[in-house]
Amino acid sequence: MPVVRIELWEGRTLEQKDKLIKEVTHAVVKTLKIEPQHVIVILQEVSKDHWGVGGERSSKKK
Amino acid sequence: MPVVRIELWEGRTLEQKDKLIKEVTHAVVKTLKIEPQHVIVILQEVSKDHWGVGGERSSKKK
Amino acid sequence: MPVVRIELWEGRTLEQKDKLIKEVTHAVVKTLKIEPQHVIVILQEVSKDHWGVGGERSSKKK
Amino acid sequence: MPVVRIELWEGRTLEQKDKLIKEVTHAVVKTLKIEPQHVIVILQEVSKDHWGVGGERSSKKK
Amino acid sequence: MPVVRIELWEGRTLEQKDKLIKEVTHAVVKTLKIEPQHVIVILQEVSKDHWGVGGERSSKKK
Amino acid sequence: MPVVRIELWEGRTLEQKDKLIKEVTHAVVKTLKIEPQHVIVILQEVSKDHWGVGGERSSKKK
Repeated sequence: MPVVRIELWEGRTLEQKDKLIKEVTHAVVKTLKIEPQHVIVILQEVSKDHWGVGGERSSKKK
Repeated sequence: MPVVRIELWEGRTLEQKDKLIKEVTHAVVKTLKIEPQHVIVILQEVSKDHWGVGGERSSKKK
Repeated sequence: MPVVRIELWEGRTLEQKDKLIKEVTHAVVKTLKIEPQHVIVILQEVSKDHWGVGGERSSKKK
Repeated sequence: MPVVRIELWEGRTLEQKDKLIKEVTHAVVKTLKIEPQHVIVILQEVSKDHWGVGGERSSKKK
Repeated sequence: MPVVRIELWEGRTLEQKDKLIKEVTHAVVKTLKIEPQHVIVILQEVSKDHWGVGGERSSKKK
Repeated sequence: MPVVRIELWEGRTLEQKDKLIKEVTHAVVKTLKIEPQHVIVILQEVSKDHWGVGGERSSKKK
């Protein structure tokens, strides 16, 4: 009964998120040989203002 | 000094969230025999669009 | 279908953890009026060596 | 640059974990159209003693 | 390649967040002797309505 | 009252972790202008077996 949490930048379409949930669930199901109903996927959108790499927020980069 | 994080669907009233913080804190205090001031509860609301079970986002279900 | 994650110091007995899972689940169920089967509680034990307050790890305090 | 965190029960082989990291990364790459090097996957094994559903730890069930 | 997640109350300016990302990254780099590019910092703003200490949400306190 | 969680590879000395807690707390205190006692830092060591970048676990790389 795995819980998958994905932190990703804001801005994806609902269709992309649907596909992300579907494909990641499928990958977990296939690999661990469990039932799809036992996989929870939670998306956490993060603003680029709140995401820093190398000490600088990502909204500063082009 | 436990930290409790609760991910739940959006849509609860402030009154329900108040009660949730209060009751969960009480449960932790009673069980671990610690002071209430040492319990932190953080609620994280998640849109049903971002919560998937069985490969499908929860906002698709009725 | 809330997911509750509790970070707590190492050292509790299995009996205390059992009770913690039970009581916190009950608090969530009662407050949000949902089925117990929809509540997941995950305990994450943290060593006092890895837990710092005020800039100092907790294993240094008596 | 998504960060994927997967909480799963202890007991999987290293081979299964390798495959899990690989397949989940692939699912993210394919869906979000990003470079594999930008996907981080972190596995967090959780003891069944520390995982509760319906108020009962999973190590109690058969 | 550490991932740092900081949960903090809403209400900080973008300038403060910039500085927070920068200073925390610097602290990690200096201590662990790694490259800045390998440090990810993710800020998670939490409403005071969703943050409870001692069983009471922080927005109730003055 | 920020909570800082740092996921890092296993293998650092206790002295390095001490310094990490101290320096990160200091960075938060200085930036947000809060009291050190209100900053919690939690270190979460992750095995290189459980940390994947680019679809491959980090223990495979040299």
